[in-house]
Parts: sequence; C-alpha cells; structure tokens
Amino acid sequence: MITQTAEYALRAVVYLARIGGGPAVTEEIAEVTHVPQGYLARILRDLSRAGLLTARRGVGGGFALAKPAGTISVWDVLEAAESGIGRIETCPLGIGEHGASLCALHQLLDDAIASVERSFKGTSIQDILMSPRKSKPLCQTLGTTGISIKGKRPE
Amino acid sequence: MITQTAEYALRAVVYLARIGGGPAVTEEIAEVTHVPQGYLARILRDLSRAGLLTARRGVGGGFALAKPAGTISVWDVLEAAESGIGRIETCPLGIGEHGASLCALHQLLDDAIASVERSFKGTSIQDILMSPRKSKPLCQTLGTTGISIKGKRPE
Repeated sequence: MITQTAEYALRAVVYLARIGGGPAVTEEIAEVTHVPQGYLARILRDLSRAGLLTARRGVGGGFALAKPAGTISVWDVLEAAESGIGRIETCPLGIGEHGASLCALHQLLDDAIASVERSFKGTSIQDILMSPRKSKPLCQTLGTTGISIKGKRPE
Repeated sequence: MITQTAEYALRAVVYLARIGGGPAVTEEIAEVTHVPQGYLARILRDLSRAGLLTARRGVGGGFALAKPAGTISVWDVLEAAESGIGRIETCPLGIGEHGASLCALHQLLDDAIASVERSFKGTSIQDILMSPRKSKPLCQTLGTTGISIKGKRPE
C-alpha cells in the first residue's frame, strides 16, 4: 500500500530536515538512510522535480529542502515519490451513468485514500522530528556513521 | 497510495465474481474492465500465483476465481497485485535501540497501513457486488459490450 520508494523518500527528507535542511550529497544521505545509492539518486531527482528539494552541484552542494520542514507534509513526499492513483472523483472506467456517484469498489478505495491523505497532510516532516516518542527517526544511524550534524552531536 | 495495478486487479476479480466466478479469457476481461491486455495478463498471472485465481488452457478455459467471492477480501487482491511494504513491525533501518518501539515516521506509516488493512480485510469481493449503492461496479460496461453474463442479462 505504501511503496518502498515512498518510504525511502521519507527517510531522505527526514534526514535533510534533521541536519537543518541540508545540503547533503547523495552518498551521505544513502549511508545514513540505508538506501541503495542508485535507487536514492532517482528518488532525490523526483523530489527535486516536485519542488520539495533543491539540487546544487559542486563543492558545498548537494540536495537541500526547498522549504521549511514544517511546511512539507508527509503526503507531499508520498505524492512526489510514488505514482498512486490518488483520490477517485469520478468512475475510472468512464461509466457515464455513474456520474459523481462511485460504485462500492471505488468508494471503498477512495475512502481509504481520503483517510490516509487526511492523516498524512496533517503531519509535517517537522512534526515527525519533534515527536516526543522515545525512538527518534534515523537516530542510532546518525550516531554511528560519524557524519557530523551541523555543529550538534547526534542524540 | 493505491497503485494502478492494484485497482486493475480489483476490476478483474470483481468482474469474475460478477459472472459467477468465471472462467473468462484475458481478452474478455480486458474488454470489460478497460485494462490494456498485456498489462492485465501480468496481473492475472500474479493473482493466480497468489492462489486467488485458477488458470486453465484450451476451449472453455480461462481465469476463474479459486474460491468463493465471499472469502476473497479486497486486501487479498491488493496484497497479491502490488508490492507495498506491508505492516511495519520493527524499525526498517534495523536500528537496534528502537526495538519494537517505532519512531514517529514509521509509527505514522504503520497506523495508516493498519487502518486500510482493517477496512480492506473486512470487505469481501462479494460485499462489493452486494452493496446497495446505485452505481454497480463495471455495470454500464457489462451492458454495452455484448458479453453474455452466464444466462442473465446485465443490469
């Protein structure tokens, strides 16, 4: 239901948010998030195309969040990273007589998508980082890779 | 969030249920469900491998439901047709310190998957067909293709 690609994309965006927005190069993000580098490169390109990341070449370059983590929702990342069918407004088979009234199958699917959309749109990447939960996203990983976290020690 | 492949798979299974379980050949299912034939062939193969359909070659053959529509859930079809990440039981990054306690990101994803799983496991293909909703799945399509529906006229 949630693709591996989307889950990887979320790891990458959460990591960039953790280091204050970036920039970070693909190799670094791949190491911390445990995502194969080639696969991650494609995901980062998709996230950039969707306007969630900026990409800068050269020394000091890399991928960075294009806007504050508090304004990027989990839904934004999911939408940018995977090609689900999205909300179902009218019959996907183009059955004219259905009009705006969906059949039981498409209503069930749309209800599920709507519920997940509500939850994911209401949660920003910043919310994920600020959560009081004991387990912090990517945490031990950050602590063991030796990657410096912009002047503060990994928790 | 829900892939096109999964939605196509559901159309095919709902169609087979509508005609009493089948059998029907790929060409017929493709025509009624409006799914490209080559794409559908791969989906039907996946559904067969998952044990939801049986496939028989030759005259009078085709794909048929392997069990009654009342015992096939929407979730069964989704699981067979797409490769989502499924429920998240432990940290996908293998962060030992997390143990069974997920971080906020993976908890949010798992909650969403759990909620959809509950809804889709609780709805069988038979439930979809028996729904009192005005719009019937595949209905006008069935009525206009001239495909005979096992002795009864399409509604």
